[in-house]
Amino acid sequence: MSTRIQSWAAMAKGQPLSPYTFEFGPLGADEVEVVVEHCGLCHSDLSVIDSEWGESPYPVVAGHEVIGRVVALGEHAQGLKLGQRVGIGWNASSCMHCQVCLGGEHQLCRTAQPTIMGHHGGFAERVRAHWLWTAPVPEGLDAAKAGPLLCGGITVFSPFLNFDIKPTHRVGVVGIGGLGHLAIKFAKAWGCEVTAFTSSESKRDEAMQMGAHRVVSSVDTASMKSVFGQLDMVLVTVNVMLNWKDLMRTLRPNGRLHVVGVVPQPMAIEAGVLIGGQRSVSGSPTGSRQDIDTMLEFAARHGVVPQTEHFPMSRINDALEHLRAGKARYRVVLEADFAQA
Amino acid sequence: MSTRIQSWAAMAKGQPLSPYTFEFGPLGADEVEVVVEHCGLCHSDLSVIDSEWGESPYPVVAGHEVIGRVVALGEHAQGLKLGQRVGIGWNASSCMHCQVCLGGEHQLCRTAQPTIMGHHGGFAERVRAHWLWTAPVPEGLDAAKAGPLLCGGITVFSPFLNFDIKPTHRVGVVGIGGLGHLAIKFAKAWGCEVTAFTSSESKRDEAMQMGAHRVVSSVDTASMKSVFGQLDMVLVTVNVMLNWKDLMRTLRPNGRLHVVGVVPQPMAIEAGVLIGGQRSVSGSPTGSRQDIDTMLEFAARHGVVPQTEHFPMSRINDALEHLRAGKARYRVVLEADFAQA
Repeated sequence: MSTRIQSWAAMAKGQPLSPYTFEFGPLGADEVEVVVEHCGLCHSDLSVIDSEWGESPYPVVAGHEVIGRVVALGEHAQGLKLGQRVGIGWNASSCMHCQVCLGGEHQLCRTAQPTIMGHHGGFAERVRAHWLWTAPVPEGLDAAKAGPLLCGGITVFSPFLNFDIKPTHRVGVVGIGGLGHLAIKFAKAWGCEVTAFTSSESKRDEAMQMGAHRVVSSVDTASMKSVFGQLDMVLVTVNVMLNWKDLMRTLRPNGRLHVVGVVPQPMAIEAGVLIGGQRSVSGSPTGSRQDIDTMLEFAARHGVVPQTEHFPMSRINDALEHLRAGKARYRVVLEADFAQA
Repeated sequence: MSTRIQSWAAMAKGQPLSPYTFEFGPLGADEVEVVVEHCGLCHSDLSVIDSEWGESPYPVVAGHEVIGRVVALGEHAQGLKLGQRVGIGWNASSCMHCQVCLGGEHQLCRTAQPTIMGHHGGFAERVRAHWLWTAPVPEGLDAAKAGPLLCGGITVFSPFLNFDIKPTHRVGVVGIGGLGHLAIKFAKAWGCEVTAFTSSESKRDEAMQMGAHRVVSSVDTASMKSVFGQLDMVLVTVNVMLNWKDLMRTLRPNGRLHVVGVVPQPMAIEAGVLIGGQRSVSGSPTGSRQDIDTMLEFAARHGVVPQTEHFPMSRINDALEHLRAGKARYRVVLEADFAQA
């Protein structure tokens, strides 16, 4: 295991990614080593590459929507076998002994190790993760499209599981992008009535094809008013400031505004709207391993996969540009094409 | 039933209450008439008397924490009998046929009739309400102290019932006043670890006697920091702007900031804190009839009653002054002393 690993790395802020090789140390007892086949490209990759969340620890080898095959198992790795197809998402490990880890909510562990910060991610020949964070991919899923489920998918699926959303509920999805389009598909498969909110008229037809029952223009007051008081959950998948007052007004009694996009400024929430209708505002990060397994099984059963565009990994800088320009429809997947050593 | 009813009414904004008589119309088929024995004095009474929530429909006969005895039953009134001791709280009726009413959450009915707006409340000889909103008072409760449970009590109790608070949880209560001191007692009886937040050092000892395990100064940074990351629910019973950022920081993963006080300006809530720890901000109004019954039974079993000060109703203006001056420790109850007609 002392071969050098090829990868694409950001060496500093504001530069294109460049070829970079590194060496793994000895495989940890709980670690799994995976040969990367496909890796989704997520907005969070850009955020870390560009040091948007504070200075990133360069070199950054991003990529945290990995699909690949197990090529090495640490001596304590459990539940996996060599050659198995697996996925790795936002987290590469967690402490395993804090209260949330003990409770099975490892995604809330304060010392969880992200796959792409202080750890080399999936824009590489190989990637390593704790066995718990290495999820088997069900046979029924198209491996070339499954990567984005490991981060984008679980991020929008987790609220359905953990905030008691029922098939009888009416769900709104704000933003039809990498996360939002998966949210529409999952909401539809969950059995919900689905309202898509978008500021982009060009996405209307596609949203309907993905499963939305109606599309509301989030920048048109009359359109917004048409859904006041109607929704049980509004899932915010964008990270821009919104008209929180109007969005809260779309909620029914007991309704929930749920954010998964890190909106930069504080959200202005009126106490009266929370109190009068017994409403909530909440948020969540990705999901636990158990929830990832549940999501992958559900996605396979219902045929939920992202709408993807594919680039060879050698064209990763073109792919990053495509995403930065807001042109991705709706998720970019990179295909590993490193030259054989 | 055509006798004139004596009461104390606000005839206009900014004036002391004055004696006022009015006549009831025919008793509605679903209505119950109650002779008032005791009536708690709530901050919401002041808000309506003073037109704080928009111009009130004067004359205002406030009072919505009523304890009394049934003296007349409409022909369709159910579950009550003449002479029975009952309580009436914030709502006097609701539509009974909307989705939330059908679901038993009548307190969320958009057309619910408040007891003290467009309806005469408990600062009177008699008050009327729909039979559903007229709750039997269990034998074990001290009737002279039970009134404040009908609004203040259910308002702080409802979140425990409806937001899945467990006896193993750590609960914070912000504000030790009419609502807050009942919240401390209920949280203690619920089995929780209880942290009281106050800006008033003078209330520290009393908070501990009421059942708090610790008292934190909400205006002292070091004191606040001592509980960062520790609480499952923080119940905000005040209606003033707070340091939301620090309060959110006191929450554990999956924690909830819950408001029952109508804070006047929008609350600034950071998406990152919601997302990182899968946290929520929520609110609720009083409670359903079923929840009121559950609360009264729980209060009787655990001996939870407010700490009260008693005024004869003829001194209602002194009582209002006492409350306005922030001197109430912790809930004022008025004793009906109208002259026999």
